[in-house]
Amino acid sequence: MSPAPAVTFDDVQAAAKRIHGVAHRTPVVTSATLNALVGAEVFLKCENFQRVGAFKFRGAYNAISQLSPEQLVRGVAAYSSGNHAQAVALACRQAGATALILMPADTPASKIAATKGYGAEVVTYDRYTQDRVALGNQLAADRGLTLIPPYEHPHVIAGQGTAALELLDDTGPLDALLVPVGGGGLMAGSATAAKAINPGIRMIGVEPEHGDDTKRSLQAGQRVRIPVARTIADGQAADIPGELTFSINRRLVDDIALVSDDEIRAAMRLAFERLKIVIEPSGASALAALMAERISPLPARVGVIISGGNVDAHRFTQLLADPMA
Amino acid sequence: MSPAPAVTFDDVQAAAKRIHGVAHRTPVVTSATLNALVGAEVFLKCENFQRVGAFKFRGAYNAISQLSPEQLVRGVAAYSSGNHAQAVALACRQAGATALILMPADTPASKIAATKGYGAEVVTYDRYTQDRVALGNQLAADRGLTLIPPYEHPHVIAGQGTAALELLDDTGPLDALLVPVGGGGLMAGSATAAKAINPGIRMIGVEPEHGDDTKRSLQAGQRVRIPVARTIADGQAADIPGELTFSINRRLVDDIALVSDDEIRAAMRLAFERLKIVIEPSGASALAALMAERISPLPARVGVIISGGNVDAHRFTQLLADPMA
Repeated sequence: MSPAPAVTFDDVQAAAKRIHGVAHRTPVVTSATLNALVGAEVFLKCENFQRVGAFKFRGAYNAISQLSPEQLVRGVAAYSSGNHAQAVALACRQAGATALILMPADTPASKIAATKGYGAEVVTYDRYTQDRVALGNQLAADRGLTLIPPYEHPHVIAGQGTAALELLDDTGPLDALLVPVGGGGLMAGSATAAKAINPGIRMIGVEPEHGDDTKRSLQAGQRVRIPVARTIADGQAADIPGELTFSINRRLVDDIALVSDDEIRAAMRLAFERLKIVIEPSGASALAALMAERISPLPARVGVIISGGNVDAHRFTQLLADPMA
Repeated sequence: MSPAPAVTFDDVQAAAKRIHGVAHRTPVVTSATLNALVGAEVFLKCENFQRVGAFKFRGAYNAISQLSPEQLVRGVAAYSSGNHAQAVALACRQAGATALILMPADTPASKIAATKGYGAEVVTYDRYTQDRVALGNQLAADRGLTLIPPYEHPHVIAGQGTAALELLDDTGPLDALLVPVGGGGLMAGSATAAKAINPGIRMIGVEPEHGDDTKRSLQAGQRVRIPVARTIADGQAADIPGELTFSINRRLVDDIALVSDDEIRAAMRLAFERLKIVIEPSGASALAALMAERISPLPARVGVIISGGNVDAHRFTQLLADPMA
């Protein structure tokens, strides 16, 4: 007998109720141009339109809204240079908790400002000399804070699964669902929801070609640590899958596709010019895999999670102008 | 007794039935960030998500779908360097007519390719030595084509009005509606619809500060021709209002606001970074007027028509990087 799964479909449904009216129900975008280009019927779940500009708000709010009144009063901590920082900051404001966010000192000023803008206290650290996990645990212990990890938590995973739940509710059955994979939380939640609704759906994760820790881990049957090469998909530059997320993904993920930075750029450009939407590099990887014909056999009806849109205009112009950016 | 208006609310409602299922019903986007920034409840009618990337498809299809079978067989002509070209091309394909589009020889290759991509024949002319109106009329007469003008036609104007109709249907009563003004067709249609639904609504047009022909014409009580200065809002660089559009707008428009190119850039940047949507310069002018505090008194609930999103990634980066672009 296998142990009960750490995250169930019931957990995702309960998360959907919790985030209702707090998170956005993001639109599902379709495009005749895109369909003709890839030769399939494509449904884009646009989490770039989510609060804080990324799916991360779903998981953060689902976790923080389940804290006890005592925990909320003592406050919440998180470490992140990316979208999880703003997600925890805003979720804390919504739930009435104080937030302490640990960010690398070289985080772009705009991201630090946005996190502070949601009312969080930001503490910076030197990412080259300090261990963020040790530091985060220390700060949390000293101040009695509850640490909300970016993906290694069943409530976070259940929250992320609500995007797939909404997508399938809007589209009906799909042949496959493409999901960007970093730490694996979005995929673990999405697969939990999608396989429960539609057991025959193919769950295909997408990683940057030089950040393929989950692909290698699935092949090896155990978590494999890799040296992550430079990629524009900064939100997917994980060196090893999470323990919890991997335990779910090895059970539910059918395949992993890999994409190059140039393929991600092409997807960002198509989204900009034809769909008129802004997608950050990590958020575009699943669309890139479809456009670059990395998905075989090609599904007739395919969902794609566009996981976020946080790229400032200056960075966007660099990325699209300079292939070495 | 005043003569019957050239375009009535019934005409706009009939246009809405004609375009149903052919044009997109575009989303109305809201943003807590934007509301906080401008101090009003803002509803963005996103015609950048319309087919061909701009509201122009509504008017073109409404006009072309009313042609007789004989006219459709002989074919349709239009002259345009911008969104009207692609709108007529696609509307003709939908209606089963051939399209001949007259475009300046220096039109960006991507726009010519897009127009041909919809199945149109493209004829180029030298905008410095040839008169496009004379040339268009000549070609149309020689070949027996029906010319679809970009705004001086009651069916075109009625079609453009369907965007405001949908917006007010989604939002309920608004205190004001901000509309970009070029030739005046979008405004004439919008005002016809909005004032019929909600007589107290303030209709405010927005022009580039150095392309203020409609503002001057309204002040003078007659159509005034101006030398148009260079502006990034190429879709709004009209030198004189249309005769038909002005006859409608002088009756229904309450005010005109002016915006600078830098204010348009700021609106494009905010749309990109916070709303994750792509707006072309002309399409951002009404949002720019609101952000730059050009609307006084500030309405509590305000609609803004985002008229288009056709700006390629390269041009976008130039515009936002270089204030002299």
